[in-house]
Amino acid sequence: MSRSRTTPGTAPSAPRSAPGTSRSAPRDRSRDGSGSSRAADGGAPAAAAWTAFGGDLHLDLGGRRAAGAGLRAALEDALREAVQDGRLAPGTRLPSSRALGQDLGIARNTVVEVYGQLTAEGWLSSRQGSGTTVAERAAPRPAGRTVEVRAGLRPTGRHDLLAGRPDLSLFPRSAWLASARRALAVAPHEAFDYGSPLGRIELRRALADYLARVRGVRTDPERLLICAGLRQGLGLLAAALRERGTGAVAVEAYGLPPQRDTLRAAGLGLVPLPLDGSGARTDLLDGLSAERAGGRTGAGARADRRPGAVLLTPAHQFPTGAALAADRRAAAVRWARAHDGYVIEDDYDGEFRYDRQPLGAMQALDPDRVVYGGTAAKSLAPGLRLAWLALPDGLVEPVARFRALADTTGPVIDQLTFAELIDSGRYDRHVRRCRLHYRRRRDLLVAALAERAPHVRVTGIAAGLHAVLQLPPGSRPEAELVARARAGGLVLSSLGWYLADPALAPDAPPALVVGHATPPEHAFPAALDALCELLREA
Amino acid sequence: MSRSRTTPGTAPSAPRSAPGTSRSAPRDRSRDGSGSSRAADGGAPAAAAWTAFGGDLHLDLGGRRAAGAGLRAALEDALREAVQDGRLAPGTRLPSSRALGQDLGIARNTVVEVYGQLTAEGWLSSRQGSGTTVAERAAPRPAGRTVEVRAGLRPTGRHDLLAGRPDLSLFPRSAWLASARRALAVAPHEAFDYGSPLGRIELRRALADYLARVRGVRTDPERLLICAGLRQGLGLLAAALRERGTGAVAVEAYGLPPQRDTLRAAGLGLVPLPLDGSGARTDLLDGLSAERAGGRTGAGARADRRPGAVLLTPAHQFPTGAALAADRRAAAVRWARAHDGYVIEDDYDGEFRYDRQPLGAMQALDPDRVVYGGTAAKSLAPGLRLAWLALPDGLVEPVARFRALADTTGPVIDQLTFAELIDSGRYDRHVRRCRLHYRRRRDLLVAALAERAPHVRVTGIAAGLHAVLQLPPGSRPEAELVARARAGGLVLSSLGWYLADPALAPDAPPALVVGHATPPEHAFPAALDALCELLREA
Repeated sequence: MSRSRTTPGTAPSAPRSAPGTSRSAPRDRSRDGSGSSRAADGGAPAAAAWTAFGGDLHLDLGGRRAAGAGLRAALEDALREAVQDGRLAPGTRLPSSRALGQDLGIARNTVVEVYGQLTAEGWLSSRQGSGTTVAERAAPRPAGRTVEVRAGLRPTGRHDLLAGRPDLSLFPRSAWLASARRALAVAPHEAFDYGSPLGRIELRRALADYLARVRGVRTDPERLLICAGLRQGLGLLAAALRERGTGAVAVEAYGLPPQRDTLRAAGLGLVPLPLDGSGARTDLLDGLSAERAGGRTGAGARADRRPGAVLLTPAHQFPTGAALAADRRAAAVRWARAHDGYVIEDDYDGEFRYDRQPLGAMQALDPDRVVYGGTAAKSLAPGLRLAWLALPDGLVEPVARFRALADTTGPVIDQLTFAELIDSGRYDRHVRRCRLHYRRRRDLLVAALAERAPHVRVTGIAAGLHAVLQLPPGSRPEAELVARARAGGLVLSSLGWYLADPALAPDAPPALVVGHATPPEHAFPAALDALCELLREA
Repeated sequence: MSRSRTTPGTAPSAPRSAPGTSRSAPRDRSRDGSGSSRAADGGAPAAAAWTAFGGDLHLDLGGRRAAGAGLRAALEDALREAVQDGRLAPGTRLPSSRALGQDLGIARNTVVEVYGQLTAEGWLSSRQGSGTTVAERAAPRPAGRTVEVRAGLRPTGRHDLLAGRPDLSLFPRSAWLASARRALAVAPHEAFDYGSPLGRIELRRALADYLARVRGVRTDPERLLICAGLRQGLGLLAAALRERGTGAVAVEAYGLPPQRDTLRAAGLGLVPLPLDGSGARTDLLDGLSAERAGGRTGAGARADRRPGAVLLTPAHQFPTGAALAADRRAAAVRWARAHDGYVIEDDYDGEFRYDRQPLGAMQALDPDRVVYGGTAAKSLAPGLRLAWLALPDGLVEPVARFRALADTTGPVIDQLTFAELIDSGRYDRHVRRCRLHYRRRRDLLVAALAERAPHVRVTGIAAGLHAVLQLPPGSRPEAELVARARAGGLVLSSLGWYLADPALAPDAPPALVVGHATPPEHAFPAALDALCELLREA
């Protein structure tokens, strides 16, 4: 690399000299090795604030010194910045330290130090006999280039009825802060260290008790893993399943597309299970295993697609809304035992049943075959990224090992705070408050539809943060309804959007999925109006 | 599945009846279908509190009712628990709802409801003509089975000088809490939603300014990604590199084993780069690319092992302690440009240089080729899981996409709190305080060794939270030294432990890596004593 060549072609494209202060001296003044660069204003007080290499380069030291930096630091910053943004082009020869020191009225040694620092960082190049030059480097990054990140983006509109989000205004900020204060007051120093990949023991203890009490889960702190959202938990499970040879996972025919993305990203195939009024057709699992196993014996790749696990939402099928019937629960567990498989129970809104006590977690039927997954995304906030898995013995070690490869242990302060929130009873009170809130929302939705769109049927059990609206035969197609809604500022999704496989699309009348929990309280009536308006013309 | 069979072989192994209250009636009393189970104490006040199916089963309702639960809930819980823990074996026939209602002195309908609930959950089985029986399920989990999770475990001892951890007692709990309070007071509701996979914009803005000011990093909020520890960041980068066809990554010959684990877990090969006093031999990168590309042309798998990226610790090589020289920095960037590769700059302790102003980040040499990674693990605490990547344009989208598959967005409250900590100036003050603290620690270490173990040489620049101690030729082997230390309650590691490839082990005298930041203040002198004692006999 020739660092001392002068490269006129790389002259700065957009010199930043302030109008009126640029000088007319030729810009290669500093490159002829004469060291004759001079301050713009001679020996005036501003001399230390401005210096010029050639005609159009100015180093503004004054502002930096005023901000409290020392002269050495100010010169270093100014020079580095000038090189970085292209005002000092690669190859430009700098004045000698003596000349620049005189120019700026500072000690020569200070300049020598600055040159040394910037040379060590790679900005300048120093070579015996040819002085100090600007090192060769990339062209400056054009300002204003933008990078688009679309992952995780969701559509927005005036009225937001997209399912999957709680009313964020309910987040109990002061209770959370109070719990954080108490948690931080008593946490041992070691809590701030890298910790167990299972998460903080305080939270695992609190959750083991809470889940046993509220959801009938049979686990203990050694089998609980705190993860950053159920999606991360699912990714860890997927990795563990892959490792034990699982090639595919059975999923409900309707479900969360991001969950399927996570499974697919881990290299797992998906086998959709049909749904009916009793939930997923887990009675078909045995057949799937047998049928695929019994296929052409030479087709190893095909046998590999037999499901090694089934992902279910037993408390409240998402999004169609059925509770998984007892015989379907039993069938899933029986299948898992017979085929050395696992049931993954996504209890995403197990706390939110309005009409009766919710069914207990299916995990308790066989803690060695059912993974229980829960989350604080609906009960507190998605942004907390707090979820948990109650793991069968056989999965604890591999899932923890994959966790250790990812984010190691999860954020400790949130975990300690959540433990305190549960132990203090604040979490129970908050969940109760939310349940009443969402129940009222659902009642308002059902009443409004009964009055203003009686042709629409609300299906599924009285639970959760969303409802499925079945439209009568002959209604507009789902896609058209969604598009019309968005045009009017109303964001919601079709039932079809959740379909695992478009080929499974049933020949049924259109349906919409409405997240009645999503809008903040003040915006709910208007969102309801917009929805009824849409449905009136559906 | 035959649910009504009686299965004597599965009788409960450890009935939980309280001593003195167990009855001598035959235990199959409830199985003969007579429905003749009776309360233990007849019509006495305790009648509603205790009931027995057969001889040794008791449902304790009294305690539950006292705790405030309704009678229905109390019965349901008691029955469910009895089934779960095996006291009611699969196949056991339950008394009729009428009989049990009378027994307990409660309405028959209440019992019907409870049976219905437990049947729906899968605990009981109801069949026309054969009454209600306990459903078939797994044998109860034996109590006390333990699961061992070794991932993330670190050795412990009386004196902890294991490198890689800050003094956890320095964590600024009250400053953090104050920032959390302010952040929670002003955060918009949407902050608690699923967010950008890059992390909260408030923190990305604060960090972009901070990193430019303190480390000379050239980035902006759209190119910064907040991750849960640098290890997660490295995993995301590894996935993005794999996707673009990278088969291997060049790593420093000595480095953090967990980082290499993360790269390997992503399917990347590792190519170790030798180290010398100027840091990693990045001048060899061109040769590696050429040599391997020029190999047998048929060997596709072999060409795939050419490094597509190089992982470096330029500010302070971990653990050997050199600062990467200017020409080595330039060589790495030049290599990345020539081969469409990337430099990953792990700036794990860039804030902690004691003897002079630290070198600016190498990322600024070419933000389109160098990924800058930093962390709050040393400056605040590892348990926060807060780190960041400044990404080249070409990596923003893929890394964000893989992030969205993992933990989506990271915990929002910590991110908002850290942003406030930076913006308020509290973070700068804290880092300065830590720098003084650790510098003092290092000075004490160096002074103690000079006095009490003058044959030991402390190598590397005056920076960071650890030091490398070079022992004279003829000393005991590293493994023996570490074992002797552990026997004396002193935890530290050998330099060899960090070696990327045992085959690279140099024929050099032994060396130890000492984390002088690790012990809390009060424990440091004793740890230093233990170390000097060890070295005296080395």
